[in-house]
Amino acid sequence: MKKPFLLFLMIWPAILPAQEKKRARDYGVVIGVMRPGPLNSITDVAGVKVGHTTLIKGDSVRTGVTAILPHGGNIFQEKVPAAVYVGNGFGKLAGSTQVNELGNIETPIVLTNTLGVPTAMNALIGYTMQQSGNENAQSVNAVVGETNDGYLNDIRGRHVKEEDVIAAVGNARGGPVEEGVAGAGTGTICFGFKGGIGTASRKLPASLGGYTVGVLVQSNFGGALQVDGVPVGEQLKKFDFSDRLLQDVDGSCMIVVATDAPLDHRNLLRLAKRAMLGLGKTGGIASNGSGDYVIAFSVAEGLRIPHSGQSSTVSQTLLQNDAVSPLFMAVIEATEEAIINSLFTARHTTGRNGRQMEALPLNKVIPILQQHNSIRP
Amino acid sequence: MKKPFLLFLMIWPAILPAQEKKRARDYGVVIGVMRPGPLNSITDVAGVKVGHTTLIKGDSVRTGVTAILPHGGNIFQEKVPAAVYVGNGFGKLAGSTQVNELGNIETPIVLTNTLGVPTAMNALIGYTMQQSGNENAQSVNAVVGETNDGYLNDIRGRHVKEEDVIAAVGNARGGPVEEGVAGAGTGTICFGFKGGIGTASRKLPASLGGYTVGVLVQSNFGGALQVDGVPVGEQLKKFDFSDRLLQDVDGSCMIVVATDAPLDHRNLLRLAKRAMLGLGKTGGIASNGSGDYVIAFSVAEGLRIPHSGQSSTVSQTLLQNDAVSPLFMAVIEATEEAIINSLFTARHTTGRNGRQMEALPLNKVIPILQQHNSIRP
Amino acid sequence: MKKPFLLFLMIWPAILPAQEKKRARDYGVVIGVMRPGPLNSITDVAGVKVGHTTLIKGDSVRTGVTAILPHGGNIFQEKVPAAVYVGNGFGKLAGSTQVNELGNIETPIVLTNTLGVPTAMNALIGYTMQQSGNENAQSVNAVVGETNDGYLNDIRGRHVKEEDVIAAVGNARGGPVEEGVAGAGTGTICFGFKGGIGTASRKLPASLGGYTVGVLVQSNFGGALQVDGVPVGEQLKKFDFSDRLLQDVDGSCMIVVATDAPLDHRNLLRLAKRAMLGLGKTGGIASNGSGDYVIAFSVAEGLRIPHSGQSSTVSQTLLQNDAVSPLFMAVIEATEEAIINSLFTARHTTGRNGRQMEALPLNKVIPILQQHNSIRP
Amino acid sequence: MKKPFLLFLMIWPAILPAQEKKRARDYGVVIGVMRPGPLNSITDVAGVKVGHTTLIKGDSVRTGVTAILPHGGNIFQEKVPAAVYVGNGFGKLAGSTQVNELGNIETPIVLTNTLGVPTAMNALIGYTMQQSGNENAQSVNAVVGETNDGYLNDIRGRHVKEEDVIAAVGNARGGPVEEGVAGAGTGTICFGFKGGIGTASRKLPASLGGYTVGVLVQSNFGGALQVDGVPVGEQLKKFDFSDRLLQDVDGSCMIVVATDAPLDHRNLLRLAKRAMLGLGKTGGIASNGSGDYVIAFSVAEGLRIPHSGQSSTVSQTLLQNDAVSPLFMAVIEATEEAIINSLFTARHTTGRNGRQMEALPLNKVIPILQQHNSIRP
Repeated sequence: MKKPFLLFLMIWPAILPAQEKKRARDYGVVIGVMRPGPLNSITDVAGVKVGHTTLIKGDSVRTGVTAILPHGGNIFQEKVPAAVYVGNGFGKLAGSTQVNELGNIETPIVLTNTLGVPTAMNALIGYTMQQSGNENAQSVNAVVGETNDGYLNDIRGRHVKEEDVIAAVGNARGGPVEEGVAGAGTGTICFGFKGGIGTASRKLPASLGGYTVGVLVQSNFGGALQVDGVPVGEQLKKFDFSDRLLQDVDGSCMIVVATDAPLDHRNLLRLAKRAMLGLGKTGGIASNGSGDYVIAFSVAEGLRIPHSGQSSTVSQTLLQNDAVSPLFMAVIEATEEAIINSLFTARHTTGRNGRQMEALPLNKVIPILQQHNSIRP
Repeated sequence: MKKPFLLFLMIWPAILPAQEKKRARDYGVVIGVMRPGPLNSITDVAGVKVGHTTLIKGDSVRTGVTAILPHGGNIFQEKVPAAVYVGNGFGKLAGSTQVNELGNIETPIVLTNTLGVPTAMNALIGYTMQQSGNENAQSVNAVVGETNDGYLNDIRGRHVKEEDVIAAVGNARGGPVEEGVAGAGTGTICFGFKGGIGTASRKLPASLGGYTVGVLVQSNFGGALQVDGVPVGEQLKKFDFSDRLLQDVDGSCMIVVATDAPLDHRNLLRLAKRAMLGLGKTGGIASNGSGDYVIAFSVAEGLRIPHSGQSSTVSQTLLQNDAVSPLFMAVIEATEEAIINSLFTARHTTGRNGRQMEALPLNKVIPILQQHNSIRP
Repeated sequence: MKKPFLLFLMIWPAILPAQEKKRARDYGVVIGVMRPGPLNSITDVAGVKVGHTTLIKGDSVRTGVTAILPHGGNIFQEKVPAAVYVGNGFGKLAGSTQVNELGNIETPIVLTNTLGVPTAMNALIGYTMQQSGNENAQSVNAVVGETNDGYLNDIRGRHVKEEDVIAAVGNARGGPVEEGVAGAGTGTICFGFKGGIGTASRKLPASLGGYTVGVLVQSNFGGALQVDGVPVGEQLKKFDFSDRLLQDVDGSCMIVVATDAPLDHRNLLRLAKRAMLGLGKTGGIASNGSGDYVIAFSVAEGLRIPHSGQSSTVSQTLLQNDAVSPLFMAVIEATEEAIINSLFTARHTTGRNGRQMEALPLNKVIPILQQHNSIRP
Repeated sequence: MKKPFLLFLMIWPAILPAQEKKRARDYGVVIGVMRPGPLNSITDVAGVKVGHTTLIKGDSVRTGVTAILPHGGNIFQEKVPAAVYVGNGFGKLAGSTQVNELGNIETPIVLTNTLGVPTAMNALIGYTMQQSGNENAQSVNAVVGETNDGYLNDIRGRHVKEEDVIAAVGNARGGPVEEGVAGAGTGTICFGFKGGIGTASRKLPASLGGYTVGVLVQSNFGGALQVDGVPVGEQLKKFDFSDRLLQDVDGSCMIVVATDAPLDHRNLLRLAKRAMLGLGKTGGIASNGSGDYVIAFSVAEGLRIPHSGQSSTVSQTLLQNDAVSPLFMAVIEATEEAIINSLFTARHTTGRNGRQMEALPLNKVIPILQQHNSIRP
């Protein structure tokens, strides 16, 4: 098996221009058995928009904000069905109890760093109250997730400001999503390498409903990295379990799941729960110190929930229990690939106190994948 | 039965000096069968401290902050076992998922208004990071509860500032707790009357362990008020169910439970769950719009959790399942009485846009209770 | 106050013929502010049927079975939306995880004694498999609840047989429900008196939707009895908390809630949760040893779930969150009254080893209620 | 890459004697980075015993019972700390609510087929009541899990009898566990191949506490099989997702986790939750129809819970939160390997109506693994 390995190394530089962010699939890494949507991104789900504010200042500010908008309208007035699954609750996600009690989300979803959550909440509250039509809003359930970027970022400085959050919401758009060192992923670390934002999607065949499931992650956790099942972390000797666990096993992962399948809260919660299996497939272990949350929502037409309506009842068309399994497989695959994409697209970063965090060394990883017959032409 | 009623009315002014905040028990209203602690207050639990910041400014600022400290030390370094029970999740309580995942609380508990939560979180994060010994803290799980005081208070103005929160934490002390229109209860409404802060406690007899359970509430919810089981709301014709529910049935209740019984997270969660039965006994219904949360913690010696320890194990002495039932009864009684105390001690309040909220009309209520033989000498 | 008390005692025998089961309302005890349905029974919910098998044999068999059918058709083929809330999980309720995962119930609900649960499950499985149309059923989620009647009943003898369960299902019908010492309530104890089966209902005014909520309980728990808020247990000195809790504080309560309001699983779970507040209002404390479960289902037209359907989607008309609060009040009131009815209708029972369990002494209770002005003309 | 493949095929028969049950590791499949215990089995956890009753009769009885005993004593009198995590609740697991309320298990854990659950419960109740010392037991929380073996087994015939359950409990012992077509795994199917019982373990290095985590599974679910990360299911073209999901994606997995680490209920629940990540790594998707449950318990000395004790308190030494992450990784690896072992050791089975279920075709699988460089010398 050594020959292809060496051969591969030789042609390596030719196919990996350093400046470009290539995703796993661009290298021939094909995760799972289902097909991605056109962009292989959460924005394949119709109407979903993503915006970033990336904060890189001086030596020590390496953080940011990522906003995910279920739709382009007034979300407070047209809430979407939603659910939050707590994979591991060592985190500060805001808004989960109301989402699960009422079964909906009424603000953009914002991701940032751990100590930036309250400021992001304040920004979302202000944003919502100022939107036309919300003049009487006295209660706003801001949904804000976080991971801890304190290794590279001066997190105690609390550098995320309300305007940064508003900016991320404001620049949210459809189309390709910037991955890697961007937005809330600017300072994160994953499996001992530079992590960040990643996204992916799956589109079911028409015979299974033709629905799309899109996932966006803020990756910042540890374990023993596997890429498409290949034990890359072990081969890179990144972890030594003969006598200890590396400390950076801790961290967190925020996972946002969007779908156009007509799911209510209960089935969205089930969908959210499956995303954790995708995290597991990358080698994540949801360690003690990991705050792992999945926020899932549906943009299906006819499922919008008015803030206050004329009628006490609402008519909906919902997917039956029996039809959700393909969506479960889709979310697992998309989560796995979104995490891998966050690693493939992240770049070496220098941060707080001169600390370095290397990117996943693709020049070593691709050969390992090749060795394991996991690169497709 | 009319005679005692009239007689009582006549002597009424003599026993109710308007300036003084008298509590239910001062009127001979004796809730339940267990005995209160010396102060009939959450501060009967050894070491627990309570502080208020009351914000009454101009026409429209009627809000505030209440802080409950499990102990007087560095809570981040000496966490206490804790649990959060979600009675109804239409609220913005911060910190619940980490409390329930790790089984502990690491900051003071702060109550404020709905839109003040993020600012209070920011204050608690700052407070914690600045405490001596916490120089390396990069993650702080601020526990902040809220109810919505937007009827009397200009809640959209977000008048609670970080310094108000710090002040409440700073002035926290043992001893009697100011009830009624104070702190986070400044602008709240309960059963269509002025609500606010209330507290009560129960002390088990030595034969049942001698433990104390203390409760503090921020009352802001609706239903059909019952005082010691007497249908006071119905008699005051405060509610008309022949064709409608009053809109102010909505609202919320924050319930904080302290005990010195050595309970771990699991049994604290069970204790917290029972507090809702006390809310039910006052006529509360945990309506759709009510954010009802119970935060329970134990100050028992030997159960403090170090932020980071030398040892991977800890030795604890815990109460067995079989011994918790008296605590369950205690928390139900103390919650019921704390809510009633919040109503008895609250005063008529004028607020936003000149809106009025009358205090519970004790000159009518006491006679009703007398009529129902619920006043003890 | 003693005179009316004595006077009342004298006229007592005239209004309480021993042979007749009179319910709380027959004595002028009016719980809550909402109106009951025509029968004040779970069977006020259209289509709901209840059946009992009462097992009283020799000295020591004092047990039975109660079956509640959501509708008269093939429940496996036409499942109903449902939820199970675990008030306190020290019990053996079968079927809860599937009910909550899929959001529906597919068998009759059966109540029996603790050790009779598996036999009742076997009976329901057989019953379901043998129904026409279910020839291919290979998986049946039997929903069976229980309380422990081991004080009066030879529970270790496991006297409930499959045919007893089938009989209860078979004799289920609409109309008035036999309460007190009947079916699964034959051997139960509540607040130190003979408990049993009780039922009640509430019908919302048309302006609030006109929906009906019906409740059936199997009462077998302890605490400090309150009847319509009046501390009857305390007055009867049934409990002495100066130095101990009576051991019979333990026990359990099964609560079955039916409604014709169009609620999905999520809102049914919220409805179920509120039933516990009704239990609290009777003085129940959900003690450590109490297995308290609430099973709620909706019979609303258009919400039936086919076992297997042609279409992957279903169209439904559901009640909005904003409209559920009156139902919450209704279920609290109906649960409270159902428990009180179970006590009022139960009769003195002699059981295992000659043990005696007195009925609630209405000749003492009614005067106490009268004293507290809680009897309405 | 075809050459090595062909070469491998040629030498295949020499290394795979058909009669012997070889496990994944025997073929050089090394899952994860941690080391197994001596037996690579749940019985590596001190004191844990496993017993089977295998029912193969005539054409159509292909079912059985597997019993796992936390220790060899009277479990009812010496309960062990435990937790049940519901991965997907479409199943009939008995006992979960009491396990999670009280935090312990008081009977052997029994696995069987879906419709055999009640009979197994009855058997466990009888077994427990008859044990010396349990003469007064009136309430027994039987823990019984199941998966549906109705494809190969005449499940509607309900062939599991109480004596079969008693036999499995009775023959439980330490040492190597029979895997594959045995006990509750006799008729199960996994990823479209014959599934069954599998087990594995991990032993932490002394520097991480030296604790052992053992897992036993009853595998009966679907998805897209991955063996040590290699997409075996896809390569075998077992699934075609171009236009449909195979129906046998449904099913269930029961996972039993034992450890000698001193974990209380809360951390056992967290441990149980991670086992699902191991299932995900085999390609399982926890489909709609899958009842996936994890039962975790600790056999740590000093954590036994007496059925009724003299003292109201108990002193325990527990592992701190910070120390649990290695256990999380251990349970993920052991679960993955236990599932793979269940497939590797299962044999071709003919069952109901002549239906055939082929074993995982190792003669094709091993070469695929070899191709992917996943076979270690």
